[in-house]
Amino acid sequence: MFEINKVGWLEKDIPEIGPLDALMRPVAVAVCSSDTHMSHGGSGPAFNVILGHEAIGEVVRVGELVKNFKPGDICVVPCCTPDWGERDLQMRDSNNAHGGGMMRSFKFLTQKDGVFAEFFSVNNADSNLVLKPDNVSIDDALMTTDMMSTGFYGAEQANIQIGDTVVVFGIGPVGLMAIAGARSLGAGKIIAIGTRPNCAELAREYGANHIVSYKEGDVVEQITAIAGGKVDSAIIAGGNASTMLQALSIVKSNGVVSNINYFDASETFTIPTFMWGLGMSDISIKGGFCPGGGYRIERLLNMISNDRVHPGKLLNYKYEGFEKIPDAFKAMDEKPRDLIKSGVYINWD
Amino acid sequence: MFEINKVGWLEKDIPEIGPLDALMRPVAVAVCSSDTHMSHGGSGPAFNVILGHEAIGEVVRVGELVKNFKPGDICVVPCCTPDWGERDLQMRDSNNAHGGGMMRSFKFLTQKDGVFAEFFSVNNADSNLVLKPDNVSIDDALMTTDMMSTGFYGAEQANIQIGDTVVVFGIGPVGLMAIAGARSLGAGKIIAIGTRPNCAELAREYGANHIVSYKEGDVVEQITAIAGGKVDSAIIAGGNASTMLQALSIVKSNGVVSNINYFDASETFTIPTFMWGLGMSDISIKGGFCPGGGYRIERLLNMISNDRVHPGKLLNYKYEGFEKIPDAFKAMDEKPRDLIKSGVYINWD
Amino acid sequence: MFEINKVGWLEKDIPEIGPLDALMRPVAVAVCSSDTHMSHGGSGPAFNVILGHEAIGEVVRVGELVKNFKPGDICVVPCCTPDWGERDLQMRDSNNAHGGGMMRSFKFLTQKDGVFAEFFSVNNADSNLVLKPDNVSIDDALMTTDMMSTGFYGAEQANIQIGDTVVVFGIGPVGLMAIAGARSLGAGKIIAIGTRPNCAELAREYGANHIVSYKEGDVVEQITAIAGGKVDSAIIAGGNASTMLQALSIVKSNGVVSNINYFDASETFTIPTFMWGLGMSDISIKGGFCPGGGYRIERLLNMISNDRVHPGKLLNYKYEGFEKIPDAFKAMDEKPRDLIKSGVYINWD
Amino acid sequence: MFEINKVGWLEKDIPEIGPLDALMRPVAVAVCSSDTHMSHGGSGPAFNVILGHEAIGEVVRVGELVKNFKPGDICVVPCCTPDWGERDLQMRDSNNAHGGGMMRSFKFLTQKDGVFAEFFSVNNADSNLVLKPDNVSIDDALMTTDMMSTGFYGAEQANIQIGDTVVVFGIGPVGLMAIAGARSLGAGKIIAIGTRPNCAELAREYGANHIVSYKEGDVVEQITAIAGGKVDSAIIAGGNASTMLQALSIVKSNGVVSNINYFDASETFTIPTFMWGLGMSDISIKGGFCPGGGYRIERLLNMISNDRVHPGKLLNYKYEGFEKIPDAFKAMDEKPRDLIKSGVYINWD
Repeated sequence: MFEINKVGWLEKDIPEIGPLDALMRPVAVAVCSSDTHMSHGGSGPAFNVILGHEAIGEVVRVGELVKNFKPGDICVVPCCTPDWGERDLQMRDSNNAHGGGMMRSFKFLTQKDGVFAEFFSVNNADSNLVLKPDNVSIDDALMTTDMMSTGFYGAEQANIQIGDTVVVFGIGPVGLMAIAGARSLGAGKIIAIGTRPNCAELAREYGANHIVSYKEGDVVEQITAIAGGKVDSAIIAGGNASTMLQALSIVKSNGVVSNINYFDASETFTIPTFMWGLGMSDISIKGGFCPGGGYRIERLLNMISNDRVHPGKLLNYKYEGFEKIPDAFKAMDEKPRDLIKSGVYINWD
Repeated sequence: MFEINKVGWLEKDIPEIGPLDALMRPVAVAVCSSDTHMSHGGSGPAFNVILGHEAIGEVVRVGELVKNFKPGDICVVPCCTPDWGERDLQMRDSNNAHGGGMMRSFKFLTQKDGVFAEFFSVNNADSNLVLKPDNVSIDDALMTTDMMSTGFYGAEQANIQIGDTVVVFGIGPVGLMAIAGARSLGAGKIIAIGTRPNCAELAREYGANHIVSYKEGDVVEQITAIAGGKVDSAIIAGGNASTMLQALSIVKSNGVVSNINYFDASETFTIPTFMWGLGMSDISIKGGFCPGGGYRIERLLNMISNDRVHPGKLLNYKYEGFEKIPDAFKAMDEKPRDLIKSGVYINWD
Repeated sequence: MFEINKVGWLEKDIPEIGPLDALMRPVAVAVCSSDTHMSHGGSGPAFNVILGHEAIGEVVRVGELVKNFKPGDICVVPCCTPDWGERDLQMRDSNNAHGGGMMRSFKFLTQKDGVFAEFFSVNNADSNLVLKPDNVSIDDALMTTDMMSTGFYGAEQANIQIGDTVVVFGIGPVGLMAIAGARSLGAGKIIAIGTRPNCAELAREYGANHIVSYKEGDVVEQITAIAGGKVDSAIIAGGNASTMLQALSIVKSNGVVSNINYFDASETFTIPTFMWGLGMSDISIKGGFCPGGGYRIERLLNMISNDRVHPGKLLNYKYEGFEKIPDAFKAMDEKPRDLIKSGVYINWD
Repeated sequence: MFEINKVGWLEKDIPEIGPLDALMRPVAVAVCSSDTHMSHGGSGPAFNVILGHEAIGEVVRVGELVKNFKPGDICVVPCCTPDWGERDLQMRDSNNAHGGGMMRSFKFLTQKDGVFAEFFSVNNADSNLVLKPDNVSIDDALMTTDMMSTGFYGAEQANIQIGDTVVVFGIGPVGLMAIAGARSLGAGKIIAIGTRPNCAELAREYGANHIVSYKEGDVVEQITAIAGGKVDSAIIAGGNASTMLQALSIVKSNGVVSNINYFDASETFTIPTFMWGLGMSDISIKGGFCPGGGYRIERLLNMISNDRVHPGKLLNYKYEGFEKIPDAFKAMDEKPRDLIKSGVYINWD
């Protein structure tokens, strides 16, 4: 990304690494709609930034204080790599995405170059990297770095109790993982909102019991009919600022609206107070970022290796070779109707 | 209340009571700004409703299934009296204010007549009433029914951890109780926002370390200077829909904005997405209603009788005699500069 | 049960019902090892008590204040039927099994006669009964009343986080449901301890990844080898007081030992302090009873009707006819090697 | 400490420090009963270890990667100094005392020499040290390092709800801080168990409403009489393994027994199953270690500087000069009847 709406190859030096860091090269990468969103200025202007934050990488070199990794190790790289020395990460029961300030643990794109490069660096390697287990496929492992971590976080935020009825707005890759997360955390009935046929099929496979499309009538009315009234919680994994109103109107008191969508910086929530019980509804509104770090990735990998879920199914546009990254990016940007997620596999030999 | 903006004495029959209910007459009542707010249509139109929901009462008659109370008992009456047969009250870890639907446990004013009457009824008497303990003053006991329960709920919602820095917007009676609640739940520094001198003095007594006034400059800048940056949580106990923006702008990621304010039905929250980290800030927005029931009142009385807090200090406009209720109502409605809370003591002999 | 170790048919009057209660007759019942345990004096002496607490029943008559049920309704009857007027049930975030004192919500067997009778009564019918949904089988519905509720509670108590490794001691019906519960709440790897072949097979179907038998060596060593060290939490659903020591020795700091086993009143836990880090291990020890009430049963039924789990598979010894209850009881008491759970279906026509 | 029951001055080299560490010398130290306990072999044998883990220190030298501290800084040193690179510290909502294994964040005494020395080292200085604020006294600051952090943790573990009745076993320095912590977290009535008169006086000042002595009769009976039945939670901050039985017998279902006592390695808990409801009581048994790190210390200091509590009052045996450490140690070891806590102030000029 050179500037807003202008992407292409940049020539840059190999990143410097500190004593706790690792230098890596990508073995497999996936393109995220936040990459494309950013390239269009969705989070404000940016210049000469290398995009990409979902990767499996090979360790090339490690800093002198790195103890647990060595060149040649094939590792899962979380998209969110906290600097574990940040003091606010010591706060008990907090999302580690915000070490040192809001979203400051998300280093790629915002504080340094991303992973769509011949080399990229990972801070605090011992704390953030995870060796790819042999019994987990590249596709499954790659999808833990952001999609599964973010989608599952949407379900965690929703505070699902056993047997709850949960709505998931959006059946793109994050929404699909939110569905899988809701099922993994005890949801009874899951109602997903979306229209793309192959996403709908995968939504059912990941645990959705009903798929609601805006094309078939008012979404809130359809949900109400299926649920027999209001629902216990709603996860927003797509849509725009007005989706918040739909969510608030269908969640019960003592329920949660859990957002994991990345709203455009130009949008505004416009919520009449009566939609939120004049402030006394006891409907909690939460919105969070993908948690990172090696411990979380290990946990997600433990779900996969014990056959609870297979997020790799999201990857249905696959490319071979470093030079195909622009094709994968273009696919994610133009979103052909059957695309769920695009990825590129790179053999450096 | 005859209709919007028209209040006065209504003649009505003595309420019928069911087998689980009690008929009571008021011994002491307090006027709440939600009474005056409602009288001006703040929660929509209403006709021929008896106002009032904060009372100490004497039991006059009990239904045939009531076991624990008898005529003559002097009881604390929570403003929120759930019907404990409602199935959603069985949900673990929920606010009981919403049994049978949003705010449905708040029966006075909305589902039946209030306590500014010669007689009023209390549903599920065994579950909702509490004998006034001898070692708790009428004033302290009266303030548990709504002010202390609501203010403390604001602090509970804020998920305060030991040593947190907390902002409380508003130093009216609910804000003052939110301050006392924040101190009771482990807050370190408490910064209160308000201007009335006698409220500010009481705010300090209840635990505020700093009082910030909008008259002395931008509120957010003043808070930032005092806190040395952002704060851990904010409790909104006053202001209007725009106060939400101030709160969102000063709370850290992983913090809570806890609302207990009663917004006007005509207002709208207008929140640019970037004020909430594009949806990924991990700042939780909560807003709830006063929890009710006898168990909670007992707990609040236990705080008082063990000398943790004395909410009765809020009552600084006091009247004697049933016929003085309109005077107390007028005081609360017109809010003279030194008024905090008005109450009426009634001797039926 | 006439007295300890003496069971048979008792002649008793039809139970009286109060205004909130229902009189029912059993349509399907299951025998629980707590019934047989009690018959041998496991919870102390008892005389002339009708056993049985797992039932689907038909409403015969309702008290005058019951609004939601009528004669002929086929209902799921939770084994634990709280009196929702009890004040301590108003405590936020508590297990409803203890309304009015420890385990006082468990009325059958201890406070009144059980369900192995032509007629039995259910207190607080509107709050405790649930209409059996058409799309849930009798077997599945019957298993929610105790087995699924108890087993899932073991998993809830264990505070499982996404991807955790969890051990379940015991693969009897409660252990099997604890396995299903752990999977439903996000466990990654589940290691189950037990020996019976058909239980082991069902354990795998419900989500166990590994089955460990004491016959093949030291249980703790086997678990350690499979988990690669200590585990995140352990659920005790079988064994005796010494099982607690095994659990304490394999759970990590910040983990939970969650007991749902019914220990014999004659046993004693003998725990050297160093097994619990001299008191500073941060391993929580919890032990709880099956939560009850209609809301919980509805949630469990929502899991079933949305195809998350099918607890009815536990019932592998099935009998037809009221007079077969002693046969089912005998089976549960003598535990033939292939028995998991015995049940009786009753047609009153 | 040379070996069990043999203490004196050891000659050792100045500790080496790593790139993230700091070398410090003590400005003020306090003696803990875990120091004396260890010297008598309470946690097993040990040889040639320098004791001491409560200190305010001056930075002498810092490792090359330390950014926030420099020689001459006067800092509060938490007794528990996690290595923040340990992966299990990334677990959400866990006590940081166990990074890398049970109690492994407690480095002094067990993994390296303590603070009763001319020089001592602190690992991960940027994460663990806190500059002593000017508006906090040395005494107050020194008491945050272990006593206040541990005592307050006892209250946090107890999951106190507003208005709860709480028992604290023990009124030594940790018990006194548990009392202050229980009050700071919302306890209504606090009942403390102990006999020493000056401790009892301070217990009342920190928030105890009743003091119960075993000399005046059965402790459980006295508590029951004061509380009017069972209590909501109990904190064990003294006594021996049998204290657990007293605690279990007076806590309600859905309550917590919270241990912060350091039991002798030779003791055994002997708990008849019926004391714990045959395993189904829903009384949680927790026991944990002092959490550490700079963030927690900052929070405790925020309590002090905002006048919520003053733990420095514990220090009633004060000495001047490095050479007085043995006197302070002897005082703590022999425990004269009026001793609460002993400390030494050191001026290196």
